[in-house]
Amino acid sequence: MRLVTISEIRAAADLLAPAVLRTPLLPCPWAEPDRPLWIKPENLQPIGAFKIRGAYHALARLPEDVRALGVVAYSSGNHAQAVAYAAKLFGVPAVIVVPDNTPQVKIDATLAHGAEVHVVGITERESRAHALAHERGATLIPPFDHLDVIAGQGTIGLEIAEDLPDVDVVLVPVSGGGLISGVAAAIKALRPDAKVIGVEPELAADAAASLRAGELTRWTAQDRARTLADGLRSEPSELTFAHLRAHVDDIVTVSEDEIAAAVRVIAHRSRLVAEPSGATVIAAYLNRQAELPEGRTVAVISGGNLDPSLLAELFA
Amino acid sequence: MRLVTISEIRAAADLLAPAVLRTPLLPCPWAEPDRPLWIKPENLQPIGAFKIRGAYHALARLPEDVRALGVVAYSSGNHAQAVAYAAKLFGVPAVIVVPDNTPQVKIDATLAHGAEVHVVGITERESRAHALAHERGATLIPPFDHLDVIAGQGTIGLEIAEDLPDVDVVLVPVSGGGLISGVAAAIKALRPDAKVIGVEPELAADAAASLRAGELTRWTAQDRARTLADGLRSEPSELTFAHLRAHVDDIVTVSEDEIAAAVRVIAHRSRLVAEPSGATVIAAYLNRQAELPEGRTVAVISGGNLDPSLLAELFA
Repeated sequence: MRLVTISEIRAAADLLAPAVLRTPLLPCPWAEPDRPLWIKPENLQPIGAFKIRGAYHALARLPEDVRALGVVAYSSGNHAQAVAYAAKLFGVPAVIVVPDNTPQVKIDATLAHGAEVHVVGITERESRAHALAHERGATLIPPFDHLDVIAGQGTIGLEIAEDLPDVDVVLVPVSGGGLISGVAAAIKALRPDAKVIGVEPELAADAAASLRAGELTRWTAQDRARTLADGLRSEPSELTFAHLRAHVDDIVTVSEDEIAAAVRVIAHRSRLVAEPSGATVIAAYLNRQAELPEGRTVAVISGGNLDPSLLAELFA
Repeated sequence: MRLVTISEIRAAADLLAPAVLRTPLLPCPWAEPDRPLWIKPENLQPIGAFKIRGAYHALARLPEDVRALGVVAYSSGNHAQAVAYAAKLFGVPAVIVVPDNTPQVKIDATLAHGAEVHVVGITERESRAHALAHERGATLIPPFDHLDVIAGQGTIGLEIAEDLPDVDVVLVPVSGGGLISGVAAAIKALRPDAKVIGVEPELAADAAASLRAGELTRWTAQDRARTLADGLRSEPSELTFAHLRAHVDDIVTVSEDEIAAAVRVIAHRSRLVAEPSGATVIAAYLNRQAELPEGRTVAVISGGNLDPSLLAELFA
């Protein structure tokens, strides 16, 4: 199994340019003076999350005649919208399979991008997606377990290294590990001395446990589902775990209260709406200083898609 | 009385580069297809508002020995923080005079930038600021009634014209008029066919009335204070009104309910925290289509500083 390379990430950056926002690094004057902080606000992407990078890149890499047959994804979250949006940009059909506990607001957002949505029981999600792909001749776009997807997410690391060449620490949320795999591959290629630190909720800290154990440690889906950070309930694959072992320096964990408080800090001090998954990095910055390396820190806020009711609850 | 020129705005852009975020244009996939929309998110500036551009530029233009004597500003809002922050960057003293009804959270933010804060009765604000400036030999930095301040704000127009050369419509909030004066001067110099449209709350629509009347029409401070958009309670000066007459195509007005709803739309669809003043442009985009020119539209969100209690109230 090989890892993504910096030349693949550079090539991805060129392919992505028409569809993806080159997010700025936002300086945070409210940071601790000895740990200057910049936010990489991926919540500002057109679909509100970094997932557009990997999804669009995976579609862009398909041969045109294959792509024309359409794409399939199974996801209740940002990957669904990313694939639907990317397919719309390419003018090809998208089929999205979502579990039947998906909030209507997310189904509506996916439909708004012109995708066909299939609602199924949560256990059938993956099998139905494979069946639909087979039936239509369409290509399944996995949320993280694919080098093209990882290379797309890696463009975030490329941009960080370009915009802040003397970065010391990069904080990245960890779920299936596609985001941190790509970011870490880029950072370690371009700025080998910088530390790449993953952040997980304590309630879904399977990747942290795996990294400590040196092998994939499985938590039940039920356990991982306890966290408010609904974007961080997946688990690494063999491919992303290989990237983590090669490139990631550490994974720290944060509590549910720290995550909720970080959503508020990001809104009040940096004027951004972050979803709980994206806010974990600020929770770590504020509460895990003893465990984090010192220096110029970039926190990747992965997305900003919250249900209006959750937003109201967090700010009440 | 002369107006700001494009060469002054270009020179300002060079002086501002070290202190100001070059905000990206954020595409809004949720916009009407026949009126594509981009947000210019000035709420992402380090102090959360465009005011840093004019304030920093005014300080940068002072002779070094004059600047070293310090600066004074009177403001309860974003201009106070902008002057305090710019003074900190230059390492010179700042004195900020605020009225005694200023929320503690804003006083704390100004103190956090190292400024000296004087709290006075609202009617004494201006006289006290002049007295302090005289006493210290410091320079008063006005919030909008100065060509250097207008040139600084104008760099927003320059960036819009550079990033979206075929822009058709630019929507800008109007209060004292410094922001729209600079933006309109830049847009009309670089893209004369584009329309620059101001937006005011119905409850503080004195600039709209003035533009219609062809002369400055005064509303009482009490009347202007009725709007939730606390950043839009000032009134144009002779200098900014001359810019409005020369460069601004129209001013539309929006209701208080439309402003509050726009704050929510911006949070949910573009993942940004906008203050009511900044949200007026989205209120106009969503509710004044019949009065607005068609085409590729940029909405300048001027700032994102809300009291936590107001944020909670708007999202409840």
